[in-house]
Amino acid sequence: MDDDAFTDAERAAVYRCIESRRDVRREFLPDAIPEAVVARLLAAGHAAPSVGFLQPWNFILVRQAETKAALHAAFAHANAEAAALFESARADLYRTLKLEGLLEAPLLLCVTCERGRAGPVVLGRTHQSEVDVYSTVCAVQNIWLAARAENLGVGWVSILSLDDLRAILGIPEHILPVALLCIGRVSHFAGTPDLERAGWRARLPLEELVFAERFGAPWRDEP
Amino acid sequence: MDDDAFTDAERAAVYRCIESRRDVRREFLPDAIPEAVVARLLAAGHAAPSVGFLQPWNFILVRQAETKAALHAAFAHANAEAAALFESARADLYRTLKLEGLLEAPLLLCVTCERGRAGPVVLGRTHQSEVDVYSTVCAVQNIWLAARAENLGVGWVSILSLDDLRAILGIPEHILPVALLCIGRVSHFAGTPDLERAGWRARLPLEELVFAERFGAPWRDEP
Repeated sequence: MDDDAFTDAERAAVYRCIESRRDVRREFLPDAIPEAVVARLLAAGHAAPSVGFLQPWNFILVRQAETKAALHAAFAHANAEAAALFESARADLYRTLKLEGLLEAPLLLCVTCERGRAGPVVLGRTHQSEVDVYSTVCAVQNIWLAARAENLGVGWVSILSLDDLRAILGIPEHILPVALLCIGRVSHFAGTPDLERAGWRARLPLEELVFAERFGAPWRDEP
Repeated sequence: MDDDAFTDAERAAVYRCIESRRDVRREFLPDAIPEAVVARLLAAGHAAPSVGFLQPWNFILVRQAETKAALHAAFAHANAEAAALFESARADLYRTLKLEGLLEAPLLLCVTCERGRAGPVVLGRTHQSEVDVYSTVCAVQNIWLAARAENLGVGWVSILSLDDLRAILGIPEHILPVALLCIGRVSHFAGTPDLERAGWRARLPLEELVFAERFGAPWRDEP
């Protein structure tokens, strides 16, 4: 156990990373990311847990301007559709928000899941069919935190159709696109989430989200 | 930027955490986890990114022996079904694997997703319907990494039916169970994943999983 143990300073660094990670949309700088840093981010993703050790992910690095422009056009189309789904005041607020950095970020990264990578029967997926996709999301979060530790911002862009994403990046039918990330150096990391500062939604009190033994049973009342 | 910057030592701690995190099933020790540590793990989960700042998660802490026993019985039932799905030699190997620590770990944690928490229309979920579930998985991975930094092991148990999980933990229909985690101090952290050491599956070469600009286009050939 002793050889394995994290020091207080290491633990503090991990918590600082978790707490100061942000979903970045507006603070990207154009500086290229060194290849060695990109390789470390990808290795962090590849170190994620995966059900049945499936490692179902692929990583598509996007740096060309025309690919970014096509993704941005797909976003703009979807974003206009999305704004129209909200009520009037909410729609007005929605339209003021910057929700992606596809053109500004020097690097985009699409993370996908190959669900058939080891055949139809996967250890650990037999009774919960979605867990291979969840493994892929764990890889995304690893990359997001590694990027923060590299002083790089990441923004996850989900406002575009998966059909458009497939068409632009040539993703075959049997591969599920899971995340499209904008990655780059930033002018600064905001202290709080953009949507919290914009008044879109408030931070929920954690203690109201925690239960003991059964869903709905208060945490702090437990013996 | 300077105030935000991670030092080399902080960055190394984050990478060490990502690399040395394990899916733990057999090394749990019975020591209780201090409440302050549990609170830090939950805060790490609550610091995860969420689409539309939805924060769709709840956390159910399970410590009672009868609840653990019920979960273990549901696992045992599902695990016997699962073993029968593999071919003969594979099934024999499957039956030798220890795939959960539900009775040994001092703390179990179920992480759930309330998909309707902010009504039907959620910023960022309009064109990709699953991203609120993905947010919940990001919370799981935050907890997993925070636990590693606290020198606690975590194992994700997915070999039980969601219906059984719902029934045992009283999870209502409109709430999606995402993860059941075993958490506790461990005798040691293994150097490699259990399933790799057992010969179940090999580590895939990362460079074969990375593409440039389009799915399938080799990474290292890019200009």
